[in-house]
Amino acid sequence: MIVIMKVGATKAQVEAVIANIKTMRLDARVIVGEERTVIAVVGDDRSAIDRGVLSVMDGVERTMPVLAPYKIASREVHPADTLISLKGAAIGDTRIALIAGPRAVISRAQILELAHALKAAGAAALCGGVFDPQPYYTSQGLGEKGLEYLAEAREQTGLPIVTEVAEPELVPMVARYADVLQIAPHNMQNYPLLNAVGESAHAILLKRGMVNTLEELLMAAEYILARGNQEVIVCEGGIRTYESYTNNITLDINAVPVLKAKTHLPVFVDSSHAAGNGHSILSASKAAIAAGADGLIIEVDQPANIARAASNEAHPVNPEQFVRLLQDLRRVAEAVDRTM
Amino acid sequence: MIVIMKVGATKAQVEAVIANIKTMRLDARVIVGEERTVIAVVGDDRSAIDRGVLSVMDGVERTMPVLAPYKIASREVHPADTLISLKGAAIGDTRIALIAGPRAVISRAQILELAHALKAAGAAALCGGVFDPQPYYTSQGLGEKGLEYLAEAREQTGLPIVTEVAEPELVPMVARYADVLQIAPHNMQNYPLLNAVGESAHAILLKRGMVNTLEELLMAAEYILARGNQEVIVCEGGIRTYESYTNNITLDINAVPVLKAKTHLPVFVDSSHAAGNGHSILSASKAAIAAGADGLIIEVDQPANIARAASNEAHPVNPEQFVRLLQDLRRVAEAVDRTM
Amino acid sequence: MIVIMKVGATKAQVEAVIANIKTMRLDARVIVGEERTVIAVVGDDRSAIDRGVLSVMDGVERTMPVLAPYKIASREVHPADTLISLKGAAIGDTRIALIAGPRAVISRAQILELAHALKAAGAAALCGGVFDPQPYYTSQGLGEKGLEYLAEAREQTGLPIVTEVAEPELVPMVARYADVLQIAPHNMQNYPLLNAVGESAHAILLKRGMVNTLEELLMAAEYILARGNQEVIVCEGGIRTYESYTNNITLDINAVPVLKAKTHLPVFVDSSHAAGNGHSILSASKAAIAAGADGLIIEVDQPANIARAASNEAHPVNPEQFVRLLQDLRRVAEAVDRTM
Amino acid sequence: MIVIMKVGATKAQVEAVIANIKTMRLDARVIVGEERTVIAVVGDDRSAIDRGVLSVMDGVERTMPVLAPYKIASREVHPADTLISLKGAAIGDTRIALIAGPRAVISRAQILELAHALKAAGAAALCGGVFDPQPYYTSQGLGEKGLEYLAEAREQTGLPIVTEVAEPELVPMVARYADVLQIAPHNMQNYPLLNAVGESAHAILLKRGMVNTLEELLMAAEYILARGNQEVIVCEGGIRTYESYTNNITLDINAVPVLKAKTHLPVFVDSSHAAGNGHSILSASKAAIAAGADGLIIEVDQPANIARAASNEAHPVNPEQFVRLLQDLRRVAEAVDRTM
Repeated sequence: MIVIMKVGATKAQVEAVIANIKTMRLDARVIVGEERTVIAVVGDDRSAIDRGVLSVMDGVERTMPVLAPYKIASREVHPADTLISLKGAAIGDTRIALIAGPRAVISRAQILELAHALKAAGAAALCGGVFDPQPYYTSQGLGEKGLEYLAEAREQTGLPIVTEVAEPELVPMVARYADVLQIAPHNMQNYPLLNAVGESAHAILLKRGMVNTLEELLMAAEYILARGNQEVIVCEGGIRTYESYTNNITLDINAVPVLKAKTHLPVFVDSSHAAGNGHSILSASKAAIAAGADGLIIEVDQPANIARAASNEAHPVNPEQFVRLLQDLRRVAEAVDRTM
Repeated sequence: MIVIMKVGATKAQVEAVIANIKTMRLDARVIVGEERTVIAVVGDDRSAIDRGVLSVMDGVERTMPVLAPYKIASREVHPADTLISLKGAAIGDTRIALIAGPRAVISRAQILELAHALKAAGAAALCGGVFDPQPYYTSQGLGEKGLEYLAEAREQTGLPIVTEVAEPELVPMVARYADVLQIAPHNMQNYPLLNAVGESAHAILLKRGMVNTLEELLMAAEYILARGNQEVIVCEGGIRTYESYTNNITLDINAVPVLKAKTHLPVFVDSSHAAGNGHSILSASKAAIAAGADGLIIEVDQPANIARAASNEAHPVNPEQFVRLLQDLRRVAEAVDRTM
Repeated sequence: MIVIMKVGATKAQVEAVIANIKTMRLDARVIVGEERTVIAVVGDDRSAIDRGVLSVMDGVERTMPVLAPYKIASREVHPADTLISLKGAAIGDTRIALIAGPRAVISRAQILELAHALKAAGAAALCGGVFDPQPYYTSQGLGEKGLEYLAEAREQTGLPIVTEVAEPELVPMVARYADVLQIAPHNMQNYPLLNAVGESAHAILLKRGMVNTLEELLMAAEYILARGNQEVIVCEGGIRTYESYTNNITLDINAVPVLKAKTHLPVFVDSSHAAGNGHSILSASKAAIAAGADGLIIEVDQPANIARAASNEAHPVNPEQFVRLLQDLRRVAEAVDRTM
Repeated sequence: MIVIMKVGATKAQVEAVIANIKTMRLDARVIVGEERTVIAVVGDDRSAIDRGVLSVMDGVERTMPVLAPYKIASREVHPADTLISLKGAAIGDTRIALIAGPRAVISRAQILELAHALKAAGAAALCGGVFDPQPYYTSQGLGEKGLEYLAEAREQTGLPIVTEVAEPELVPMVARYADVLQIAPHNMQNYPLLNAVGESAHAILLKRGMVNTLEELLMAAEYILARGNQEVIVCEGGIRTYESYTNNITLDINAVPVLKAKTHLPVFVDSSHAAGNGHSILSASKAAIAAGADGLIIEVDQPANIARAASNEAHPVNPEQFVRLLQDLRRVAEAVDRTM
């Protein structure tokens, strides 16, 4: 950390800062500049508490971190890519994984039919929500019954199951059926939930909140990793913008190479969510692959359900469209030396 | 809702849309324009499901809602201000309520001392977090022990207690001690939690997520109201911006008059959070009152804790500063015909 | 346009709105809903003035446009892609055009050397700024001398020249040397300048401002088109975000398919600017092509100048890197059925 | 500046950075940390060019500025408030200045009538645009004829004139009539224009672009100051947001105290623009004063023109409303120890 003193900070103030740094068992180097004095903290000062102590001391203008606050998630500490084994596939490897399925599991017939179609098309995993996935108060999810259908779909097709868990106490139940536990964007900083999945033996698909920074995303990952679960996939799913033509969302495409550089964890893109509307899903998916994503999440549902559940924000493709989408994406994947 | 057909939509497509509208027991009026045909839906079409069905039909370009999706929360349906009675005070009335207290309850001595100081200064309620309020993995909250301290502070001072609840199954326990249950910004769309507090008999302080629209905030309030709890305070607490000088946050001051116009619920501002850093808290608090807020949330802690817990994002004032702040705010309150 | 009346608007208010609509020689259709009355305006009501008149009338809650405010730029009015012929190449065709060159022209040697390298690599045009391109007050551009160097480079290589013009009265002078006149993002709504280039016979490269909506971009294009110049390329170059890891910018990738759908004009991406920093330029360029861009702008300079002119926001590649970049991009272009 | 080396940077790389720093006649201090080496540059390193040289050197991860890039505009270098004398009034003093007038000057009668009404109400200056102030291609300004009307209004009322200049070559002409030259938000980085007004003897009202950072605003001010014009007012006028209920704009209220801390220049707020729509103008104006603004810009026009020119983005008040607004604002001003 670098502590920048105010112009005109006194010698006593500088010394008080140094004394405080030493209390934390860290070392200090003072640089007297022409306009200001700057103090460099030497040692591992990641703890937010320590940073705070210094920033409110008399004579201190501001502090600037040198080290990222996360450590286990950081590529510097762990240079090699983390590969997550999922039913034989290695997530994070050169093969790009497509997680596909409906927003909501609504019936056994729906999910089994979709699972077979997606398996045939080449999806890597089946996703689907079973708990009230709707912001509006009209719909309710199938709950455990939906998890049973997903498990049956896995049994029939071999596709691993990805599903959201939104409450800490539901983690064990969901984990009995699912292969990957998904954290929704609006739960990215739900710490009791992160805690609970951090103690699970399942891989976690952690989605970035629509207004969260990449540092906050990696800190949420760190929070899970610190509890012992080393299998975390971080997922960019769109950030909110002022642009109404794109439904006020865009895929933060620059986040993909930056995340790949900052962390060793696999980096996914939820292109259905990030696309904002039906017109952009193909473009967003291709762009995500071109930019280096390790996997995509694509919402697929049956035509009848698409019509029934659609809104300006939902924009699933049907299984037939998915087959064509995948053909297009495979070509882009090959152009960036990946397979699919 | 208005359904806008594509240029060149066929007569059959228009008729299919009308037929679909009638299936929903709504009525349709067709307006044939020079360039496009537009269909107005007559009736209460708030349900997102219906809206979706139409927007994905052949020949439809887009749909535009005429009615807000929320109803119970809307001022149109309920023109009179909702007043929430809290230990004799009427939240939402001309008296502006100051909710004050530390981010985290850390000891009995701290909270009792603060409670007496805040009571003497004129705060309307005491707030404080008891569950791990930190994004970093170093600190843990006091849990139920902290709630006991808060309850003891209420007993000694008469100040009602406001505290966060972050997990549905903890609602009954927190409700045994607290007077107002607070929903954090990152939990604004945590539906199981909204469900749980919707069934509580306690008033709810619902904070807007940093990237949530006002419509989403009012829909989250609606979600609680629809479950029977009519006492919801909505709270603007800052939106994320690109501006590093203000810690990437600003108080969305325009949200205050707009919320007052759209809803009958009391509108608060978390000025400590929205201020972004210590330099702006007085300005943000004054501005919130000047713009019409019914109450403020201000973080107050003891000097020693401020030093220990401070970070670039935390910026509590100490009790002495709070007394001066309140004097300044009272003058602004009077200038807008409010008391404090 | 749809006029939404307030709940409880009187019959007289509705009639006054209708009368006003008829004054504008437009027609009105009234739809009496359960909660509100809605009035549909029939006819071409694109003029902002008319829209305003209605929105401030008594009893009116708000107005919602049905038609986009631009017309000449719109794909509905002009369904076929606009192709712009540039020294034999057709901009907007299946061949993706790479415009490459330095941010600033600083010497004859620099620009001639770069021009030959870029021509050999396969660039479609040479760009370079000659007027003070720096936000800081230390540097000045070469002015007309720089234009002469660019013209000489064209003579030697055949590459058409793209350069910025920032003042209306300089348009004739710049037009004597350049093939394409570029409007910088911060000048997108500089109307005297749009006016001036609208009367030019040269193709215009119009960059989107970092906070401008796509509607505003298309309206700026419309402004040029309306003055007679039909050769406008619209260019997405990144929008400002809250994300410091990406230098507070991301390529609005969703803008690409949306612009292609809304307008017949060629759609480019300034991937050097949108990348935000050096780590993302390859990803952003690939993503732009994958998403459907008709061309890219890539900053290329000599290593010595890169070192001298670099900042956190500038991130040119050198000619050698450009050759490799182009090889990578060509593969992605082919994967989306384009050439380069 | 602080140069942060990559983990594993070699000794030779560190030495090359130091050598480069010395070439710039600056000094270097090396701090060898546990994980990284950090180099502090000692001396005035504000020049962007130097910063760039270091950030692209081998082994360098990133550079962090310690000094703000502006100097003349900075309060550190110039601690006392700058007061700008305007027809006897001192802008930046305890008296809050209201600049009021129509968006567009459309007739002699309009501007004279408004000027008398505004003078009587207590406005400090009269504003009005004379050059095509419309984004759409339907309207044109009155040009010099409009300036004559404004000058006549000044003669009759004594109110100083504030008007926009958008082209460098028009500066002398506008300066013959106006007292304060206004730079529109979309021209904040129009350097030829900043250049031209920097050489003028008139005070400049510099509006922040809707997506510009405060550092960019202060750098634009610096640009003017560096050319010799010391009378610059900086003006916050709203930042674009994702919130449609507030017309995608909010007043960046936190910018006010931060600007007051960073610069000695007077800080204004364009509350008409920042309000986003008619419902918020009173709230935004009160909030701006409460937060510490030195002046406000409020759009006032005659009722007939408001109806004719109104749009969802324009929201002038009429003279009668202005009188009441001013009464309300005066009370808030007094509550923060200002007059009006």
